[in-house]
Amino acid sequence: MNYQRFFEDAIDQLHAERRYRVFADLERIVGKFPRAIWRANGRAQEITVWCSNDYLGMGQHPDVVAAFQTAAGRMGAGAGGTRNISGTSNPLVELEHELADLHGKEAGLAFTSGFISNEASISTIARLLPNCLILSDELNHASMIEGVRRSGVEKKIFRHNDVAHLESLLQAAGRERAKLIVFESVYSMDGDVAPIKEIADLADKYNAMTYIDEVHAVGMYGGRGGGITEREGLADRIDIIEGTLAKAFGTLGGYITGTRAVIDAVRSYAPGFIFTTALPPAIAAGATAAIRHLKASQAERDAQQRQVAHTKHILSAAGLPVMASTTHIVPILVGDPELCKMATDRLLGVHGIYIQPINYPTVPRGTERLRITPTPYHSDELILELQGALVETWDALGIPYSGAGRPAVTESERIVPLLVPKSGG
Amino acid sequence: MNYQRFFEDAIDQLHAERRYRVFADLERIVGKFPRAIWRANGRAQEITVWCSNDYLGMGQHPDVVAAFQTAAGRMGAGAGGTRNISGTSNPLVELEHELADLHGKEAGLAFTSGFISNEASISTIARLLPNCLILSDELNHASMIEGVRRSGVEKKIFRHNDVAHLESLLQAAGRERAKLIVFESVYSMDGDVAPIKEIADLADKYNAMTYIDEVHAVGMYGGRGGGITEREGLADRIDIIEGTLAKAFGTLGGYITGTRAVIDAVRSYAPGFIFTTALPPAIAAGATAAIRHLKASQAERDAQQRQVAHTKHILSAAGLPVMASTTHIVPILVGDPELCKMATDRLLGVHGIYIQPINYPTVPRGTERLRITPTPYHSDELILELQGALVETWDALGIPYSGAGRPAVTESERIVPLLVPKSGG
Ligand SMILES: Cc1ncc(COP(=O)(O)O)c(C=O)c1O
Ligand SMILES: Cc1ncc(COP(=O)(O)O)c(C=O)c1O
Repeated sequence: MNYQRFFEDAIDQLHAERRYRVFADLERIVGKFPRAIWRANGRAQEITVWCSNDYLGMGQHPDVVAAFQTAAGRMGAGAGGTRNISGTSNPLVELEHELADLHGKEAGLAFTSGFISNEASISTIARLLPNCLILSDELNHASMIEGVRRSGVEKKIFRHNDVAHLESLLQAAGRERAKLIVFESVYSMDGDVAPIKEIADLADKYNAMTYIDEVHAVGMYGGRGGGITEREGLADRIDIIEGTLAKAFGTLGGYITGTRAVIDAVRSYAPGFIFTTALPPAIAAGATAAIRHLKASQAERDAQQRQVAHTKHILSAAGLPVMASTTHIVPILVGDPELCKMATDRLLGVHGIYIQPINYPTVPRGTERLRITPTPYHSDELILELQGALVETWDALGIPYSGAGRPAVTESERIVPLLVPKSGG
Repeated sequence: MNYQRFFEDAIDQLHAERRYRVFADLERIVGKFPRAIWRANGRAQEITVWCSNDYLGMGQHPDVVAAFQTAAGRMGAGAGGTRNISGTSNPLVELEHELADLHGKEAGLAFTSGFISNEASISTIARLLPNCLILSDELNHASMIEGVRRSGVEKKIFRHNDVAHLESLLQAAGRERAKLIVFESVYSMDGDVAPIKEIADLADKYNAMTYIDEVHAVGMYGGRGGGITEREGLADRIDIIEGTLAKAFGTLGGYITGTRAVIDAVRSYAPGFIFTTALPPAIAAGATAAIRHLKASQAERDAQQRQVAHTKHILSAAGLPVMASTTHIVPILVGDPELCKMATDRLLGVHGIYIQPINYPTVPRGTERLRITPTPYHSDELILELQGALVETWDALGIPYSGAGRPAVTESERIVPLLVPKSGG
């Protein structure tokens, strides 16, 4: 066994399959989001980020940055211990109350990431329940799949958002057996939404627990940012609502909310919660500031929705293959991994526009795409710029337009002056 | 299946077994470490933390706090994406170079925690290697055990620090089979150190890879804080050195370092690295400041070692059962879970001294203990105060002293004036 050669070969294989990833070195600029400095080959250049998951730009919000800096100045840069051994800071306690309140649940529990919150919570809940069966949507995120695997319990995968298929699996398991249904509200690669009410109805009918990942919805949907479950008045029908602090809330960490008993059980039994240093007080304070702001302010959500709708409209008008999406996620079909990578290289190198290619295994082969996430800070001007850059790239690389090809777009249509977002920057 | 009742019962069981944990709500005070505000029952009170893993107080170091605040002010509170999708910030790239340099390795890779760095790296390396056998020390940390489990490969547990036992297992596996030895340098509950050289020799002899967790050593040992492997000149004999940014480096996150090929493989294949938001630039900048400071400055390490030696001496002199430890970890034997909990409650309530009880399953039954971690900021005065509080508690609760009981300590011995640490505060 030659270990060094083995790992070199593993990397070579990724190169051969065109799956080797190079991370762009970016430095975002507070006050100028979505602009960032991109460093490559010893050069630094200002570019526009079009694929950030800081969906509402809260990472640069003055209240969030101030809370973050103040807490660090008063309490230091880290937590100093695990939750049980000196690491539970007052801002973290407050954050957990804020999260419980956000979703109208009895209790909340914060983790160092959304990834570990899913992995630790799903595996712990399923492992504790006697002879539990997990029912998992086929498009669930890697972190949920890790949780399902780690639990070691039996699992059944249901077809994406297919309630009839889910029902047949529930029926086969019977009412008596412990069952946990795990699914997402907004699926982040297609931007579609789960039939939450129907799933909750089935859970009642067959006595199953429900666990929803609202990572791509919290902060952005519902009157207070409680996610799709809030928007649809369904939060009380889902047992565990999971979310992240690292996307619309602009910081880092993940969480679950639910009844006191189930949260206490995860808190007490999950290795991924117990045996790790707690989130720093500064992160907790920053996240709390973001959540509080978004509970009270609708401006960011409105501006995001407007810019998203506008982006979809402007790109579709140019004949670009905007995929169906009912949310803030705007996928553009490329349909080929090489072209997808070439397109994003060209967008960055020629147009100063940063979008990551989304290739297999993240999405099925043949559906390779650009995944665009307009924020309240992507002005109408930037959207037009994006349109021009995409059209140039589509033409240069011969990527198919939607339907019959690129429609004739009159110049006046493309430069019509547009409103600036309500909460611009 | 009544889910609510089930989880309530699970919690009741913890209460019945006296394993239910209540986290102390603490607010550390920059400039006054190890002092903190403890909140309970609507009251707030200043106390001394004696069990922090911010071992060198770097969480309050002016350079670290300034780097943290400056980066947040310039780049925002979060990373805004996964490493691959817009989340790789310039401070994170710099941090990984700093880490590789710290351990004299080709490459470094940062994770959101030491927990996930162990889980993701061990499982990914072992899963990639064909028919890999993991050899794991029986006292390895929960995060390493999760990594071993998650890998799904065959494992053999060797008796703690027992190289003869390890050799017999290696021999049985043979030279040809892929093998990964996973162990720690400093074991955090007993404060003992692994026979690293002997293990590296065995790895050479039987052609095994080696993976060491230096979580409780980085920053604190070696001329530049490279850990026990640096102190003993063995860094180049270990394939993967893992560490945390959340203990001696005072912030949050974990990492691995090794050859470019193996680091690149983990970077490319580990779900726990790929599918999660990157560390915020502020955390990366704060950690880099801490690492750089400790590469150049010996003052914190010297002061810590002095205060540790002094604590051991002063507590032993009072007849308190200080357990054998060759490192900065000072365990005091209680030997009973109830007494252990009562002792820490009394220390906090009566003496304003915060130490967590360490009970089963963290340590074997019958070895329940207090785990004390003196930092450079625990002055000689605080050490004397601790001695007095422990003696009062030992007497009040009838906890056994070491050997023949409490020696007669003359008053003058107990109040002899002592040096203040070099880098006090
Ligand atoms: C659906 C989903 N769940 C969980 C996560 C993980 O959250 P975090 O980035 O906070 O680890 C992600 C992506 O990062 C995600 O897309
Ligand atoms: C030996 C060991 N490894 C890893 C970890 C996890 O590190 P982190 O706190 O950064 O998650 C810990 C404790 O927290 C530990 O004691």
